[in-house]
Amino acid sequence: MKKVLILGSSGSIGVNALNVLRKLPEQFEVTALTVNSQINLLEKQIKEFQPKFAVVNDESAASDLRKRSIGNCKILSGEEGLLHAAAETEYDILVGAMVGFAGLAPTIEAVKRGKRVALANKETLVVAGQLITDLTKKHGAEIIPVDSEHSAIFQCLTGENKNSIKKIILTASGGPFLNKNMEDLKSVTVKEALNHPNWKMGNKITIDSASMMNKGLEVIEAHWLFGIEKENIEVIIHPQSIIHSMVEFVDGSIKAQLGLPDMKLPIQYALTYPERIQVDFPPTSLTKIGTLTFFEPDFDKYECLRLAYRVLTEGGTAPCVLNAANEVAVEKFLKGKINFSAIPKYISMALEKMENHISPDLNAIFECDKETRKFVKSLA
Amino acid sequence: MKKVLILGSSGSIGVNALNVLRKLPEQFEVTALTVNSQINLLEKQIKEFQPKFAVVNDESAASDLRKRSIGNCKILSGEEGLLHAAAETEYDILVGAMVGFAGLAPTIEAVKRGKRVALANKETLVVAGQLITDLTKKHGAEIIPVDSEHSAIFQCLTGENKNSIKKIILTASGGPFLNKNMEDLKSVTVKEALNHPNWKMGNKITIDSASMMNKGLEVIEAHWLFGIEKENIEVIIHPQSIIHSMVEFVDGSIKAQLGLPDMKLPIQYALTYPERIQVDFPPTSLTKIGTLTFFEPDFDKYECLRLAYRVLTEGGTAPCVLNAANEVAVEKFLKGKINFSAIPKYISMALEKMENHISPDLNAIFECDKETRKFVKSLA
Repeated sequence: MKKVLILGSSGSIGVNALNVLRKLPEQFEVTALTVNSQINLLEKQIKEFQPKFAVVNDESAASDLRKRSIGNCKILSGEEGLLHAAAETEYDILVGAMVGFAGLAPTIEAVKRGKRVALANKETLVVAGQLITDLTKKHGAEIIPVDSEHSAIFQCLTGENKNSIKKIILTASGGPFLNKNMEDLKSVTVKEALNHPNWKMGNKITIDSASMMNKGLEVIEAHWLFGIEKENIEVIIHPQSIIHSMVEFVDGSIKAQLGLPDMKLPIQYALTYPERIQVDFPPTSLTKIGTLTFFEPDFDKYECLRLAYRVLTEGGTAPCVLNAANEVAVEKFLKGKINFSAIPKYISMALEKMENHISPDLNAIFECDKETRKFVKSLA
Repeated sequence: MKKVLILGSSGSIGVNALNVLRKLPEQFEVTALTVNSQINLLEKQIKEFQPKFAVVNDESAASDLRKRSIGNCKILSGEEGLLHAAAETEYDILVGAMVGFAGLAPTIEAVKRGKRVALANKETLVVAGQLITDLTKKHGAEIIPVDSEHSAIFQCLTGENKNSIKKIILTASGGPFLNKNMEDLKSVTVKEALNHPNWKMGNKITIDSASMMNKGLEVIEAHWLFGIEKENIEVIIHPQSIIHSMVEFVDGSIKAQLGLPDMKLPIQYALTYPERIQVDFPPTSLTKIGTLTFFEPDFDKYECLRLAYRVLTEGGTAPCVLNAANEVAVEKFLKGKINFSAIPKYISMALEKMENHISPDLNAIFECDKETRKFVKSLA
């Protein structure tokens, strides 16, 4: 029986992780759950899964929850509670399902304890790729990607020698604006940007999909997860999202992993790897789907994707600046304060403004994140 | 330096195997080559690769060759020479590139010696699947498929537990008659049948592709290679022949192997496995290919495919009858003696006529093959 801690159990990945765990009660036990502030959902999850700990980031929401009848589950709060859960409580697998930069510190705690990290929180590797990679090696931790693209690559690499990789090919749906041109993008609404054709996800990642910043973050994530240089990471548009990603080997052979767009599969794989467990997911029928198409992305239109490749070249804290600027810009866009095309502009401005620190330690990364946010928030 | 014997070096697979080996002189040495009667090509191959032995099945062609200046290469002849090469000469890998039933006996010799067999000769497993499987286990031999479909499946299974397989999905181009209906098939010409859209192969296999008997033989081959029941082997039409085949796992994940239709890749993989060696094959660009399509096969139109599933259910010598009847019928079609639609009819008649022997030994298989050929040859 493996013990599982879920960072971010009220989000899209967290809820799906619990959907997976609900069906595998013989194999897994949920020992801790964390949320930002959604205590109503957390209360239900506590009642069903009976974890020993739960963490609510928001202090007043935590107080509210403590007043309710939730059995023996200990409620912790704030950043301190989050770090305590990751650093001190007993678990085998940490599911990193938080969104954005906030997942970094607790993930590092799990890595330092040599745990398995089922990582959906791509920002962690984007901002602190070198640090996490070094710590993972040092402490014998195991990072299994939960992103469908990286899970696909991970699966394609099972049993293969990493030196045989020639190229990683990340597929991208192209998002809701696939058929719009650069000019159109200036006037798209929040509602349009949130209308992803294939995947149901949280707001932040859905906007990132529309701008293709999500794919850009995935390029950086793939670089760190698989040790592949950016020249050998290709992005292709595949609107049906059936082929989740591919690996091309030095002998010209390509392996791909396919399936319906459903996050439960990569989540379960990250939990059960190297085993695969039988489930009743609906099967993927290529004959019903009929047609798969592929074309090259337009880097002029998807400027965020170009910026992601750029920061991977620059290294140091540049990816951290990109990520922080993007988080703030997306928030501004979601609140209707800026238009969609301003997202890459704000990121470019932040990259111009912020100094790049090479080989940053965790403090330097936190500092860079804070300063970048401050700067982008200050922009009109 | 691995020593390689090629059974059938003048055929399409044999020539491609030598094309692969020509580029890997550090890793491989060709020690023996065999042909049926094409001594002019064999002479060139001997001069280039300098094997210690060569076998010519046709006795008078062998005599002719012996009169030419071919250095120290010893020329053997007939079935006896073939068996001697497989059973007595020194090699590490036997490339089974002969077409049809004739590859069976020498392949068995290689298996009995615990060698690696790079198997393109699918008829071997079709007629003697149980026997070969048992001998492979007993003698610790290794069968690596060279058929692009089975190589794809083999590659998808690298690092995976065979118990995790839910289904094997073989892709089929649909051949030159994809857009013809059952009625049309009665009047197709030999030239039309030999005009395969994607693959350049020998005549026999090209006709088998047009009738989809080739896919039927592959279903039977997959059953023996991977230990999968026929209910879990699916055939889908994929006209572009880019996805070479797929494996669906119990957790719903599907892995596929892709590439341009070029036999050099699976041949090289079977030689170098588990390593992959860098080569200058042209890369596969999905964005250039653009579109991949998939649909279900019409079993009424492709009656040979249905017959293959049927003999897999019946077992015993039924697959041997199917194979022998098909070989003779295809020969008759190629000579213009029968029409295309008669191929499955002749096979059905043979299956009605011949008694099924369960668990046949090699003698029973040879006997069944001989009797079936006699019967089908006798048909008007």
